[in-house]
Amino acid sequence: MEKTVEGWKQLAGGVAAPKGFYAVGVQAGIKYPDKYDVALIYSKVQAQAAGVYTKNLVKAHPLYLTQRHLDNGIAQAVVINSGNANACVGDFGDKSAEAMAEAVAKVVSIPKEDVLVASTGVIGVEMPIERVLTGISNAGEELLSQVGKDLQGQQDTPDDGAHRAALAIMTTDTVVKEYAYELPCSQGGVIKFGAMAKGSGMIHPNMGTMLGFLTTDADVPSSVLQRFLREAVEESFNMVTVDGDTSTNDMVVILANGASGVTPSGDDMVHFESMVKGICIQLAKDIARDGEGASKFMEVIVSGVKTREDARKIARSICGSSLVKAALFGEDANWGRILTAAGYSGADFNPSRVDIFLGDLVVAQGGKGVSFSEETAKKILEQKEVQIRLALNDGEESATAWGCDLTHEYVTINGSYRT
Amino acid sequence: MEKTVEGWKQLAGGVAAPKGFYAVGVQAGIKYPDKYDVALIYSKVQAQAAGVYTKNLVKAHPLYLTQRHLDNGIAQAVVINSGNANACVGDFGDKSAEAMAEAVAKVVSIPKEDVLVASTGVIGVEMPIERVLTGISNAGEELLSQVGKDLQGQQDTPDDGAHRAALAIMTTDTVVKEYAYELPCSQGGVIKFGAMAKGSGMIHPNMGTMLGFLTTDADVPSSVLQRFLREAVEESFNMVTVDGDTSTNDMVVILANGASGVTPSGDDMVHFESMVKGICIQLAKDIARDGEGASKFMEVIVSGVKTREDARKIARSICGSSLVKAALFGEDANWGRILTAAGYSGADFNPSRVDIFLGDLVVAQGGKGVSFSEETAKKILEQKEVQIRLALNDGEESATAWGCDLTHEYVTINGSYRT
Repeated sequence: MEKTVEGWKQLAGGVAAPKGFYAVGVQAGIKYPDKYDVALIYSKVQAQAAGVYTKNLVKAHPLYLTQRHLDNGIAQAVVINSGNANACVGDFGDKSAEAMAEAVAKVVSIPKEDVLVASTGVIGVEMPIERVLTGISNAGEELLSQVGKDLQGQQDTPDDGAHRAALAIMTTDTVVKEYAYELPCSQGGVIKFGAMAKGSGMIHPNMGTMLGFLTTDADVPSSVLQRFLREAVEESFNMVTVDGDTSTNDMVVILANGASGVTPSGDDMVHFESMVKGICIQLAKDIARDGEGASKFMEVIVSGVKTREDARKIARSICGSSLVKAALFGEDANWGRILTAAGYSGADFNPSRVDIFLGDLVVAQGGKGVSFSEETAKKILEQKEVQIRLALNDGEESATAWGCDLTHEYVTINGSYRT
Repeated sequence: MEKTVEGWKQLAGGVAAPKGFYAVGVQAGIKYPDKYDVALIYSKVQAQAAGVYTKNLVKAHPLYLTQRHLDNGIAQAVVINSGNANACVGDFGDKSAEAMAEAVAKVVSIPKEDVLVASTGVIGVEMPIERVLTGISNAGEELLSQVGKDLQGQQDTPDDGAHRAALAIMTTDTVVKEYAYELPCSQGGVIKFGAMAKGSGMIHPNMGTMLGFLTTDADVPSSVLQRFLREAVEESFNMVTVDGDTSTNDMVVILANGASGVTPSGDDMVHFESMVKGICIQLAKDIARDGEGASKFMEVIVSGVKTREDARKIARSICGSSLVKAALFGEDANWGRILTAAGYSGADFNPSRVDIFLGDLVVAQGGKGVSFSEETAKKILEQKEVQIRLALNDGEESATAWGCDLTHEYVTINGSYRT
């Protein structure tokens, strides 16, 4: 359960690490006076782009705009605000999203249709749109000045703009989620990746209040990005659950601007795909670790299942069970709750073949309890990161999901969020 | 949100109120020394019977026995223990359930196949079967002595056996759930009903750790009981959610022994059916009120939906949302979370037509927020019982679900249940 992906060279610079990308975060005072709350990502040239969105029937206003603007698979900028979800406020919400895209288009001089918009925060409250637009204008100016310095070769010390962007998308997050990597290609050249995400409550399969942004300077067409991103999301963000609620606002987008000059093929394309997935998994695990009020991280690995879909259902069901989460908090080796959560997942399996492990300790075998050392179990459960494994011995497929414990702090945070 | 069903005459005596039924509860020391933990219900004659069971793929051992014994639609006794679920312990579990049925059959001299068995408690731990069998033997002796006294007309003061039975099936319940009613029939005669239930955590649609037992002295065939019970469960126990977990052990059974001499027909049969449903709803609401750690009860009424199934999905999704539950605990009029939970329920509706009410206060209209008095909202949310209504204005169907808030106490209880 490493923090960074093994063998990959990590870079500074977050979403602005890939060539031709720039990012800033500013304080627009949307909800709090001293919080970064508007983020802007910009590519010097039009980028191939793809997105995956919340499956909630109730969608925030910017979602519709972004989906429309991504119809042609091209984007050049992304603006994100925290502090207000711009959801469920009627026409005003559509107009607000539109105004945000227009403001970006104007300040960096690109077509409005190449701007994507994302929001996160409280639902059902109108955006303080004037403050947001002022924020965008300031962000745009700063971004242009970055581009200018870059052109003049004055960009010696790395700018903290991308880091401020990653701060600006946070809500109840306690940890900034930001990465950059490079992939040296066997065909020559180097591809860079940048990424940032937010999410800590309302996280669930289907991307409850989760925003993720990936940038790369590879030259990869939108259709391929779309396929890679969809599969990556299935195995990453959709395998994280904090509280079972899925949100109105969530999206993951990827922009590939080709500025590296590398068009990956063969093995390099395979590596490209696995890096997209690996980065998404890393962000997803960060989100689970940062679950609202979480004191422990859990990884649930389910193997030996007839179908991949069933393996995913079981892994997610266990991660999402309030009783498993509370038992984890209480450091109680209550494997009965684990098997029960598998049982109501809707997946098909033979309960009498299931082996259950906490870390390396077997606690149930063939669907029934075995005698185990409660002391050893306690030591495993006392760790900050706990691995639960189920071997179903019923097929060849497997899946991994991530979650966190259910704590008093979660109740406190969510009993007082809006006001 | 009344505690008893309006217009129905309530009786004392719980499950033993209908003619020819007897019940006792004893202390067998299964988990705690001074807790009633074995309950026995007995009918002087064979009764028509029907059952509805958990949909969890992982089923406790007694479930299989009870399903088998109910194949012929006949039962004469039900034995229930708390303190141990008799689930996920392999062959020993099947043998334990078998031994419990045999012990009952022996002590009250009926065929083993007419005994139903139910258990509730910790999963994956072998039953202390010797203690349980001794308990059953004691319970049977006491029950026979009740029958004897009854025959001799010595049963002047109502026996508290049924009440002890209701106590014996409780686990983390804080309130005993026990009722009896009578239905005067227009065709002449009186039908009596008795009922008891347990459940407070792990409650969810599909009957998470919920046990319910209904008795009646009406003469109604098993096939009709089965149909009435299934429909009643759909609108009662399956509309309650405390924490989203469904259990391995749950069942609701009804026994009708015909001892009243009344075979209801016409209007009386309609009343009989609605009493079965009404009693199930009353028990279900009691369970939600008694949700583990709950400080508030919520009733969610969803109307104007295209299909009944969608209405149920939405109502259950709202009741089951951790964020809605935490907002209720925090007395925060966060209607965005309510609409969001409707949105991910899987039901089909038009979000822009939804009106949302807290009590009588409209907080959203046409899918967007309206300005409302936070003070009034606070007053509504401060109540112990809160009603949330959604008018979807999109069809003719409706549904009601019940739940409770998510509290620090829930986390405490479930962080330390097993040990």
